[in-house]
Amino acid sequence: MTSATFQVIRLSRAAAASVSPATAAMVRRCILDWLGLAIAGANEPVSRTLRAIALAEGGRPAAAAIGGGEEVSARQAAFLNAVAGHALDYDDVSLAMHVHPTTVILPPLLALAEERGLGGRAVMAAFVAGYEAAGMIGRWLGAGPYDRGFHMTGTLGALGAAAACAHLLGLDEEATARAYGLAASQAAGLKAQFGTMAKPIHAGRAAEAGLCAAVWAEAGISSRTDILEAPQGYAATQSAIPAGPITWDGHELDRNSFKYHASCFGTHGAIEAIAALRAQGLEPTDVRQVRLTVDAGADRMCNIAAPRTGTEAKFSLRFVAALALLGADTGRPGLFTDAVTAQPDLVALRDRVTVAFGPRDWPADLTAVEVTLADGSRREARCDTSLIGADDDRLRAKFLHLAASLPDGHAQRLADQVAGIEAMTDLRALCRLATRVV
Amino acid sequence: MTSATFQVIRLSRAAAASVSPATAAMVRRCILDWLGLAIAGANEPVSRTLRAIALAEGGRPAAAAIGGGEEVSARQAAFLNAVAGHALDYDDVSLAMHVHPTTVILPPLLALAEERGLGGRAVMAAFVAGYEAAGMIGRWLGAGPYDRGFHMTGTLGALGAAAACAHLLGLDEEATARAYGLAASQAAGLKAQFGTMAKPIHAGRAAEAGLCAAVWAEAGISSRTDILEAPQGYAATQSAIPAGPITWDGHELDRNSFKYHASCFGTHGAIEAIAALRAQGLEPTDVRQVRLTVDAGADRMCNIAAPRTGTEAKFSLRFVAALALLGADTGRPGLFTDAVTAQPDLVALRDRVTVAFGPRDWPADLTAVEVTLADGSRREARCDTSLIGADDDRLRAKFLHLAASLPDGHAQRLADQVAGIEAMTDLRALCRLATRVV
Repeated sequence: MTSATFQVIRLSRAAAASVSPATAAMVRRCILDWLGLAIAGANEPVSRTLRAIALAEGGRPAAAAIGGGEEVSARQAAFLNAVAGHALDYDDVSLAMHVHPTTVILPPLLALAEERGLGGRAVMAAFVAGYEAAGMIGRWLGAGPYDRGFHMTGTLGALGAAAACAHLLGLDEEATARAYGLAASQAAGLKAQFGTMAKPIHAGRAAEAGLCAAVWAEAGISSRTDILEAPQGYAATQSAIPAGPITWDGHELDRNSFKYHASCFGTHGAIEAIAALRAQGLEPTDVRQVRLTVDAGADRMCNIAAPRTGTEAKFSLRFVAALALLGADTGRPGLFTDAVTAQPDLVALRDRVTVAFGPRDWPADLTAVEVTLADGSRREARCDTSLIGADDDRLRAKFLHLAASLPDGHAQRLADQVAGIEAMTDLRALCRLATRVV
Repeated sequence: MTSATFQVIRLSRAAAASVSPATAAMVRRCILDWLGLAIAGANEPVSRTLRAIALAEGGRPAAAAIGGGEEVSARQAAFLNAVAGHALDYDDVSLAMHVHPTTVILPPLLALAEERGLGGRAVMAAFVAGYEAAGMIGRWLGAGPYDRGFHMTGTLGALGAAAACAHLLGLDEEATARAYGLAASQAAGLKAQFGTMAKPIHAGRAAEAGLCAAVWAEAGISSRTDILEAPQGYAATQSAIPAGPITWDGHELDRNSFKYHASCFGTHGAIEAIAALRAQGLEPTDVRQVRLTVDAGADRMCNIAAPRTGTEAKFSLRFVAALALLGADTGRPGLFTDAVTAQPDLVALRDRVTVAFGPRDWPADLTAVEVTLADGSRREARCDTSLIGADDDRLRAKFLHLAASLPDGHAQRLADQVAGIEAMTDLRALCRLATRVV
């Protein structure tokens, strides 16, 4: 029987070799959405601090630090750009992986493509290979590692990044298996760090680990080639080696979830459901009590009862529900400040929100909202976040908002380049366009 | 009650503030032993390959790549020198931590000291702080993480390196706690990788992670400050949060174990016990069968039954026992080659060795050897590796052997400098002396 590791390698390569127009469109959405987030996220304190440290450390200029205007080494670019893409916690999500996929898979690919002069078609195929590999591993592992406390964007993300980079570098199956092993040897990230700057650093380290793993494997560094299923290997230390085989059920990419709100994805169901109630005429002044019912997994993800900082607010179902009740523009990352988090009207509303957990068979992505009004009557709405589809108009508006710091016309040119990325034989112009911040 | 994290910080700072002459002598032994190993290990394929990649990547020259003759960035030096120090798997061991301590704690300290012009006294205090911090955490966690499959040199090692670097940079308690958190966010390493080049890479990554964590914390990067005991934090994801408090029972450093054989430390008891039988007249030609009894934990550490490579041979109790029966010089790293591993007389002898596991109460570090001779008579010997003390003559001979590639007289000068390291206000001369390989 083929080992789990080689099965993932073979299936993900096959997936990368047969990309439908719909899947290719999804990749372009991932790239555009990520570029906007990295451009805006590069101005966040975590990005600015780490960029200054990287510049002091030095390195042969080979790739763009997105949003920063500097060139750094490919490895530094992978790290800094992945941090920037996740700094606002507004980037896309794979529910199958429990990972923010694009910000760990794309930055190391762009950095290597810049360094080695590789084009858009190769990057797209490598992105698919990395995404599908991580998707298969994620479905195989299930939620066990996430429930145990691993931040899978940092752990499984490193494997996805390595799978993508190995594909871009043209490694054979054996070398790719070593790249998987070398990525697993660096896979780290703790959910306890949600709400701190360490969270985007997990994404940065995963991207960098994936790039290093592929470059090391290319250079002949040895490793186990069965790291997924090996005793004391990746699955064994993350939770347990699953009993079942690796399977692939069509492109996982087609189910990629974009964020339209700048808070934790686990809060989006509440926001969407409350927005639907507001559209039906709900007024915040009428609200006596709000009861959110979510999957119990949310408790360890986005259930900070009384957040103190803007970053913590993004992980607070109660606070985010209060924002939604007031009709705040949760698509604007600048909304989540320490000051807004302490705003008395929002705090008062937040304190009327209770969070309950559904029974064992409650769908993981379902949120139910029950509002009790001052007159005792009730309003109810539900949202299953796994069913929120990709909306190009919303994504475009989000991108233009996030890329507003670029000089006039650059955001539009960037969007045009992404639309035609498969024909680009050199990605330096695209990456440079995303770095020219005023 | 003080949190576990702050308890470790306070106790380890106190330990660093009260170093006895005997403990200081142990630190000097750690430094000298490590320098020899890094000088020799820098010529191993894993070191040469990673050094070439680092030089291509570039960086502001700030610290010596030991053995290589080049200057690299402090971060690169921490990584490369830690890999080199562990490349031969011949470096010291802390049985309390399940970690090779010096090669993860010392290289980032030397790199930062070079970069910032800090002296020997500060490095020694920081080394003690890092070692004792990791020792306390190791005793608190127990063997759970190691048994689960984590290579604790990579995981706990990152915390030890961060604790040391935070001390050297003069961080306060709060910033030190963030450094612990940022190190835990990068803590990785899998025992499945034993016998591959990924093993020394775990040490390199731990050293680099510790340095980065301290530098990031100094620059204001945020993190949980209770990462050891936090739900979904370090202990929780490594195995389980221990019920007991953090305690300190005198300098863990005083119990540091040096290796006098170039194989896995778990094989040393067998080597020493067989050497004792040889000293009593045992002849290999008389041997019909050898039975080794060890703790069951050895099965997942050093029990490769039929090793194929020199690297695997170091993790094979059976093969190492065969070497010891023939009186091979197991203190010589060059002994462990693929060719020797396949040598017919050794393979024949190896096949007469069986490995048994002691009952549940068997001491973790005890090896019992029972040899049955051709005439049916038996010889028995035992060795508890935790009782093998530091032997300055053996360590000096080991250092001079390992540092033999240095130009004439350099090894002796290096040993003299280490003997007076506390008085050195600048460590660049010492590090440069260790880089001038012919």
